[in-house]
Amino acid sequence: MLYEHLSVSSQGHLVFSGHDTTQLAKEYGTPLMLMDEQLVRDRCREYQNAMKQYLPAGSRPLYASKALSIKRMYELMVQENMGIDVVSSGELYTAVRAGFPMENAFYHGNSKSDADIRFAIEHGIGYIVCDNFDELDAIDREAARKGICQKVLLRLSPGIDPHTHEKINTGRVDCKFGSAIVTGQAEELTLRALSKANICLDGFHCHVGSQIFDHTPFCDAAATMLEYIAKIRDIHGYTARVLNLGGGMGVPYVSKDPSIDYAGNIQKVGKLIEETCARLNLEAPVILMEPGRSIVADAGITLYTVSTVKDIPGFKTFVSVDGGMADNPRYTLYQSEYTILPANRMTDANEIVCTVAGCCCESGDILQENVPLPRMARGDLLAVLTTGAYNYSMASNYNRIPRPPIVMLGADGPYVAVRRETYEDLLTCDL
Amino acid sequence: MLYEHLSVSSQGHLVFSGHDTTQLAKEYGTPLMLMDEQLVRDRCREYQNAMKQYLPAGSRPLYASKALSIKRMYELMVQENMGIDVVSSGELYTAVRAGFPMENAFYHGNSKSDADIRFAIEHGIGYIVCDNFDELDAIDREAARKGICQKVLLRLSPGIDPHTHEKINTGRVDCKFGSAIVTGQAEELTLRALSKANICLDGFHCHVGSQIFDHTPFCDAAATMLEYIAKIRDIHGYTARVLNLGGGMGVPYVSKDPSIDYAGNIQKVGKLIEETCARLNLEAPVILMEPGRSIVADAGITLYTVSTVKDIPGFKTFVSVDGGMADNPRYTLYQSEYTILPANRMTDANEIVCTVAGCCCESGDILQENVPLPRMARGDLLAVLTTGAYNYSMASNYNRIPRPPIVMLGADGPYVAVRRETYEDLLTCDL
Repeated sequence: MLYEHLSVSSQGHLVFSGHDTTQLAKEYGTPLMLMDEQLVRDRCREYQNAMKQYLPAGSRPLYASKALSIKRMYELMVQENMGIDVVSSGELYTAVRAGFPMENAFYHGNSKSDADIRFAIEHGIGYIVCDNFDELDAIDREAARKGICQKVLLRLSPGIDPHTHEKINTGRVDCKFGSAIVTGQAEELTLRALSKANICLDGFHCHVGSQIFDHTPFCDAAATMLEYIAKIRDIHGYTARVLNLGGGMGVPYVSKDPSIDYAGNIQKVGKLIEETCARLNLEAPVILMEPGRSIVADAGITLYTVSTVKDIPGFKTFVSVDGGMADNPRYTLYQSEYTILPANRMTDANEIVCTVAGCCCESGDILQENVPLPRMARGDLLAVLTTGAYNYSMASNYNRIPRPPIVMLGADGPYVAVRRETYEDLLTCDL
Repeated sequence: MLYEHLSVSSQGHLVFSGHDTTQLAKEYGTPLMLMDEQLVRDRCREYQNAMKQYLPAGSRPLYASKALSIKRMYELMVQENMGIDVVSSGELYTAVRAGFPMENAFYHGNSKSDADIRFAIEHGIGYIVCDNFDELDAIDREAARKGICQKVLLRLSPGIDPHTHEKINTGRVDCKFGSAIVTGQAEELTLRALSKANICLDGFHCHVGSQIFDHTPFCDAAATMLEYIAKIRDIHGYTARVLNLGGGMGVPYVSKDPSIDYAGNIQKVGKLIEETCARLNLEAPVILMEPGRSIVADAGITLYTVSTVKDIPGFKTFVSVDGGMADNPRYTLYQSEYTILPANRMTDANEIVCTVAGCCCESGDILQENVPLPRMARGDLLAVLTTGAYNYSMASNYNRIPRPPIVMLGADGPYVAVRRETYEDLLTCDL
């Protein structure tokens, strides 16, 4: 089993965080997303403690809420005293509705409209992470209109290739985010920010990619960014107070993925920062990190009911379920790997190697290839692990399929954090 | 310009179906999806007329509503006297709410639950297109419970490779849909259907793929299916009354795509059917076809506002807009090609070749690469053509981005068919 919070009951049922998954499926129906609330809290604390211990004073994590942006997650972040990052006015609004203190929120994105910026400022956003020249001018205009000095970080491209999947590789220079150090545009953007009356430049942001298991890309990025900070200090006399290193620490999805030591990585980044600041004679900036996937991914699993098993002799075996690319498009988008378990038949021997197919009317609607399973039948239950991040948040109503509920397993038992969409909900905007 | 319903005004603005797109963007905001209602009607009539003229008596098209499943589309299908296919209970429910006569609806899908089948039967579905053995048993059970004989087509795999994109290639044998003729499973399913008391088997269905421009794959599929029908008649004495050839006729997205003659293709399929039936001494079955994309794709365009133009010297130029993979995930999913026009600057010379990037906080959120455009600026307007199919229907709230509205351009002027989602709508299911 991939995770500590999974076990098997005496009836051969998958138990997730102490709860029999077949009972939960019966009570709430399928498809069903389950989240272990305590694991979310534990991971927040792991980041907080390690960042407090190993990084400069004031350093702290911000939950990258695009991984799972629901009201309940922001409530948990309030309770855990986490900062957050949001990437749209919709995420910002959801955080506001959850009572999140917006001074602890950072607003990201490569394409903010004037309306987005105004919305963020009106809601008292802590920081806007400014992506480009156009946006800088717009933030200055909107802050002037409101009569404030808006705290800003500038998003820079450090030019680090984390050797990860191209689509989620954002530290390279030729990506849509930020301004590159190597082209001189970062410096130009910095000087323009310093010249603006209603911009309070507090530092810089970078993000090197996703699903990174090693500390090396983060150390490389930190070194590049600190050298940039020192250079700007030396040439222009401005010293950044804050360095946001973004997110990207990985989560194992399948047994061959390496395990990851979040605190250990943070310790190594801390050592690099200490050494680099000493070498550059730089007062160490406050370090921010933006974990998203590593806060919620392995805290989530999805349960599906099998509708049919189709053997095509000489070709393949398909096991079709009652969800798919509508609730989890990650295989279709990135051929992402997932671990799939026979939730009601955990002690049966594997007999088939199959394609687990979704219910969408599209050949590409596949959840995973080459899955070893016992011989399943209509009505059996499958569990897909590690679905807490980028599943519900990326879910669509393709094929007019309602989105599943999210049931949180809390200290006082399971509760519905997000209810199942109804067919009538699908017509909300149809006039 | 790709289509006849596009033109340029004297101010250099893109005119879509007689309406200045810059005026529509100002009135309704962006991102904005526009649909030409008359083009949808015309395409329905083109299919109906050609099928009446060239195919056996009673032949007719069914709109494959997963291409764009909104209430207004089903209302148009009622007015145009079209049949429909639906692929889920959610699509079925939407059609019911639009007042669609359900006896003209066909229910597809590879993974129907008992609840789906019961829902369809309770709403008086015309036909269920049965995918597999498990489903056949379930339909028989649910029909028995209701005391009816449910009309059914069986979905078969004819084993035709239409040489199209793998993910949308569904005629091959190793796909999740249907039962293959070549493996003998089609015959086995047919015999089981004939043995069921509450199943009224009316014929067969196949679907060879999508974005097909040539008539050949349809002729191949028709020949294979007619030979199968003749074989079943010869061996088992059952003659199918209905042959549903599915959908798949293409639509040009970019200027290098071939143009397509829908009526001409249907004429050629009709000739093949006539000859094959004569050869096999077979009474020609009623032919059904299921156009989806070719009914709505080129009737739709999407307007976006530019937020920034980012030149990365030595690398690339990015033009970022206020929508992206949340409203149109097709480039991210399939690297689909689209034509993108500078809607407010149609008479300016092209000066850049750029990547048009979306606003999602994800490097892969790209709408198109290598787009020639004039030098754009924040506030300029881009039009993405051919977005009527598989855009709104596949849209998500990724990054908590509200879905855009669909404004129909009707005979009496523009009207909102689907309103823009609000931030508060995003919280509907959050408890």
